[in-house]
Amino acid sequence: MTFEITSKDNAYIKRAKKILSSSKFRKQENCFLVEGLRMCEEVLKSGNHISECYYTQKFFEKFEDIISCIGKVSEKNFIISEKISKLISDTDTPQGIFCICELPQSVQIRIEEIDRIVLLENIQNPSNLGSILRTCDALGIKNVAISSSGCDVYNPKVLRGSMGAIFRLNICFFENTSQFITSLQNQGFKIYATVPRNDSFIVGQTKFSGKCGIILGNEGNGLSNEALDICFGKITIPMNKDSESLNVAVAAGISIWEIMNRGNKINE
Amino acid sequence: MTFEITSKDNAYIKRAKKILSSSKFRKQENCFLVEGLRMCEEVLKSGNHISECYYTQKFFEKFEDIISCIGKVSEKNFIISEKISKLISDTDTPQGIFCICELPQSVQIRIEEIDRIVLLENIQNPSNLGSILRTCDALGIKNVAISSSGCDVYNPKVLRGSMGAIFRLNICFFENTSQFITSLQNQGFKIYATVPRNDSFIVGQTKFSGKCGIILGNEGNGLSNEALDICFGKITIPMNKDSESLNVAVAAGISIWEIMNRGNKINE
Repeated sequence: MTFEITSKDNAYIKRAKKILSSSKFRKQENCFLVEGLRMCEEVLKSGNHISECYYTQKFFEKFEDIISCIGKVSEKNFIISEKISKLISDTDTPQGIFCICELPQSVQIRIEEIDRIVLLENIQNPSNLGSILRTCDALGIKNVAISSSGCDVYNPKVLRGSMGAIFRLNICFFENTSQFITSLQNQGFKIYATVPRNDSFIVGQTKFSGKCGIILGNEGNGLSNEALDICFGKITIPMNKDSESLNVAVAAGISIWEIMNRGNKINE
Repeated sequence: MTFEITSKDNAYIKRAKKILSSSKFRKQENCFLVEGLRMCEEVLKSGNHISECYYTQKFFEKFEDIISCIGKVSEKNFIISEKISKLISDTDTPQGIFCICELPQSVQIRIEEIDRIVLLENIQNPSNLGSILRTCDALGIKNVAISSSGCDVYNPKVLRGSMGAIFRLNICFFENTSQFITSLQNQGFKIYATVPRNDSFIVGQTKFSGKCGIILGNEGNGLSNEALDICFGKITIPMNKDSESLNVAVAAGISIWEIMNRGNKINE
């Protein structure tokens, strides 16, 4: 059965708004909000539990099929007015579909099955985080570990920037960077710290083979000292001397490209 | 001589606000506004004409040297209150220094002296455009050609994202993509269109030598048909089949890295 909501004071809408805007509330309620046709399709494919689906009449008329599919698995379904749609959207021109789904558990990465991993320590900007996740997925990284500090993965801007990658990656979270790196390295991984200047290894001159990974740090302050100290080595993207650094999502792109040996003209 | 401004209705402040927010007004007045210590230092280094400098007392106390240097070349100098500083800033926590400078002319790129070029067609998002310019500068691309359509290069978010690269690059503008590409190709360049799927050349398996360049297109729609039709070839970053595309700034990063042969383990 589908209910109609037209009041902005409706309790469901108030809750959806809070889920959209507050990372603390998302954790407390153990759920997050996704919006847009593509992202809602990804949720459906992922099998995540959907508690509520909200859609406009206009969206329904265009995409009856997807509403019908979501309706079968969603606990509650609501038609909302265009005005309400704008209230619970993170964009200026919402498509008119929203799902509230359960937060996935932090997965246990099965170390024995993987040979590449990307670690993110305290990334602050949601567009950067989303873009890095999108890149990992596109370039074949399956496993990403994210520090509990930093931007929330279920922030609407991260979800949008990730273009659904969030539903395809194995994502785990870590509290203590050096402990986490140590445990990986004890299991045979070489973890490289990505740094902006002259350091032991130059990306592009280093051959990455066997179990290995990289860790990227905060936009302003880079990696923590504990991360730098414990890593197997440091890697650098050589830069023009007047440039201080690359955007972290671009640096991630080039580093991931290299650790996946995509630039390796000989082996491909 | 330095004047003090405390009223938000001051004509200079009203003008500065308009320069900050309107691309049309920037063109009309032939100027743009830069903010922050680092960017203002870059303006100073670049030799761009500075018509006005605005700074807070707090900034002056911390950075008297730079204020003194700018004061020598700036036509007019103003002390402003913290409140006014927020009014003409694009950030939530302004550092308290702003310069208004002349728009650089679109440079004539001296084709005979260069062997790499990056073309940008209709990039819309200022963070992407800023990030691409920052990457070009960091990886050694000196010449960038930007279509007149798309995001304004002197948008405050582009300036900030470029981290000053805007002052170090040779930037020229073009109106007609196919004419511009044709003229480059007539002068011996191979221009590659970057596309998201299966196309003639795979980045990472292609050797880039001699005069060459890439063109990147709009975030949503990619390159125009005229660009695709006229280019020497198309290049693709191979991706996981579920991923539709990379963020354009990340795709630019990897493509530029490759055309600069930075991943070439043999030659470096």
